[in-house]
Amino acid sequence: MSLIVQKFGGSSVANLERIQNVARIVADTKAKGHQVVVVVSAMLGETDRWIELARHLSAENDREYDALIATGEQVSAALLSLALTGLGYPAASYNGTQIRILTTDEHKKARILNIETEALQAELAASRIPVITGFQGVTEAGAITTLGRGGSDLTAVAIAAALDADECEIYTDVDGVYTSDPRIVPDARRLSRVEFGEMMEMASLGAKVLQNRCLEFAGKYKVPVRVLSSLQAGGGTLVDFEEKLPQEPLVSGVALDRNQAKITLQGIPERPGLASYILGPLSQRGIEVDMIVQNLPSAEGLIDFSFTVNRDDYEATQQLMQAVAQEVSAQGVVASATVAKLSLVGVGMRSHASVASTMFSALGREGIDIYLITSSEIKISTLIDDKFAEMGARVLHQAFKLSLCA
Amino acid sequence: MSLIVQKFGGSSVANLERIQNVARIVADTKAKGHQVVVVVSAMLGETDRWIELARHLSAENDREYDALIATGEQVSAALLSLALTGLGYPAASYNGTQIRILTTDEHKKARILNIETEALQAELAASRIPVITGFQGVTEAGAITTLGRGGSDLTAVAIAAALDADECEIYTDVDGVYTSDPRIVPDARRLSRVEFGEMMEMASLGAKVLQNRCLEFAGKYKVPVRVLSSLQAGGGTLVDFEEKLPQEPLVSGVALDRNQAKITLQGIPERPGLASYILGPLSQRGIEVDMIVQNLPSAEGLIDFSFTVNRDDYEATQQLMQAVAQEVSAQGVVASATVAKLSLVGVGMRSHASVASTMFSALGREGIDIYLITSSEIKISTLIDDKFAEMGARVLHQAFKLSLCA
Repeated sequence: MSLIVQKFGGSSVANLERIQNVARIVADTKAKGHQVVVVVSAMLGETDRWIELARHLSAENDREYDALIATGEQVSAALLSLALTGLGYPAASYNGTQIRILTTDEHKKARILNIETEALQAELAASRIPVITGFQGVTEAGAITTLGRGGSDLTAVAIAAALDADECEIYTDVDGVYTSDPRIVPDARRLSRVEFGEMMEMASLGAKVLQNRCLEFAGKYKVPVRVLSSLQAGGGTLVDFEEKLPQEPLVSGVALDRNQAKITLQGIPERPGLASYILGPLSQRGIEVDMIVQNLPSAEGLIDFSFTVNRDDYEATQQLMQAVAQEVSAQGVVASATVAKLSLVGVGMRSHASVASTMFSALGREGIDIYLITSSEIKISTLIDDKFAEMGARVLHQAFKLSLCA
Repeated sequence: MSLIVQKFGGSSVANLERIQNVARIVADTKAKGHQVVVVVSAMLGETDRWIELARHLSAENDREYDALIATGEQVSAALLSLALTGLGYPAASYNGTQIRILTTDEHKKARILNIETEALQAELAASRIPVITGFQGVTEAGAITTLGRGGSDLTAVAIAAALDADECEIYTDVDGVYTSDPRIVPDARRLSRVEFGEMMEMASLGAKVLQNRCLEFAGKYKVPVRVLSSLQAGGGTLVDFEEKLPQEPLVSGVALDRNQAKITLQGIPERPGLASYILGPLSQRGIEVDMIVQNLPSAEGLIDFSFTVNRDDYEATQQLMQAVAQEVSAQGVVASATVAKLSLVGVGMRSHASVASTMFSALGREGIDIYLITSSEIKISTLIDDKFAEMGARVLHQAFKLSLCA
């Protein structure tokens, strides 16, 4: 008997038919003798409905915004519990307050601090299925919070960690993790296993199957996560923690992130602590910086400093950089929101220069300019013109023969 | 400065426009220097939507049913808080769990046991407006409960009692309490004040402005309640506790309850404890009995036993009475679901026989048969054929000149 946490996203519970489908998946798992804890998102569209109403009231009150949209998960949790009960599997819904998913009080993007498991343990002991609202928690003072995008996945992994579950299954509308985005690279192949570190890079690089925060949490508590589809049978992709041996470079996938914007401050006189002068104002505004490249000083002691941010933050970043450019005496600011980050992910990359050179030459052959390069032990990222993004992904996928099974 | 609890029903918050209208009413009260605590119902239709979905899942799980429908009030409380914030009046929503409205664990019809006021007091001290979800509470074990029909009114009065508020304003779609139903008696007149006991009888007799449970609560804790409209300006009707002197019979109104069904067990041999034999099985099934009439035994020692129940309980009651009739050796059971209870309400009735005789003769003149009669200090009720219900109400309204101001 295993203890399995199963998480179902908004499209998996979008209507009554799908909720009943989810109930059957849960019931089947339970019927196989496993203990099951379920985490659900709001029905697709439900939350948007409330966001739209709130927008018309145009008031700044994040506490109430959270209280409003947190009702969506409570609806799906209750409906799924009813559906399970209807199949003969007694279930009980728990919202973030009831289970006491304690979070920080940063509304709309709260962080989980603690989860009480007594009630869940009691339900499991009574052979009932606890159905927990994803995406939400409660502050020490009792206010309802939400966890931000991908919050339900985070809830699921946190619950799995708190209960020391054997596996956390994340049901989505895709049936696993692919070597690249199948919509862009038609012969992309589903991976049956992927190493945690690779998955981290995939997620951070734009493969949107699992959010970064969720994976970090899974990594920290060593929760095995399986990504699979609620509408399609199949074993999905298991994200595990066995490190592959880096003897041979193993390219697992090609990731594409089109949500990028690039800013370059040109001709800055070199000085100590320059990076923090430039990036400080961004972090104060909560703007996350992704790629950062600073070149060596020119003969005149001038350097260029480039970085990328989310495209949503492009305008704000440009405005901030006007002031910063003056402060650091830059000669100019060059910015573009039509860039994409194209990356290769796999273990043992840095130690194998051949991977990088194969990558760069494959792109070069197609006339794709590379603006920036960053690399880590398990990834190489390039920033290219967005118009080449899809072609670049296909070129790399072919160059590394990713459609063939290893 | 007074402390006022304002409760707004589902039709008062049915859409964004009405929510903004409610926000203005609350803001105006606050602007006059009062402290305000708000209680809201779910937006009209919202709860029905979930009930319909739950119906399709056809599972018996009252805990989840309550968890599902309780989301409706959380939505309106959050939206109203946003609207108030938008008007410059900071507000904070509280659901039944957050404010800890402790109830029994009888799902769908829980009773309030206790309300913690610390959070509310803190909000008031900080000059914020607490907006509380009506209709719901939480059990000792943390399960979400709902209070049944009219539950939001009950919440409002309970909050007013707990906070020792100066007044509890119940906003509905009618602008007060009338001498009779204006849809049936066109010249019915709005009462500016009505005595608590009279109001109790009005409510129990089918004047649906306030539910009985709510009034009982108000009476127990001496909470002055004002009924008024959220869409129409006006002072409404104040339900107060000053007892009127019963020197002169004062007929305040005519109430009509068409949700009645009558059952008569005929020819039962007299025996001690007969009533409990007959009514016991009903109370076990949670069926409330309203009028009860037992006649004197005949020469053969046989009696007839008649009572009325809600029309919803008619079928169930008939079934139960088949078995009971055998047990008590009744000669037969006569039942009808097409009866109505027509009542006269006012202080000092019993001591003035003239009121009853005027009532009965007015009905008799129109050929309206009276099946059953019950009376109390402040009401006389008759059970008549439902087809005469509306005419009977108009006849009595005219016979007692209720359209003229006292």
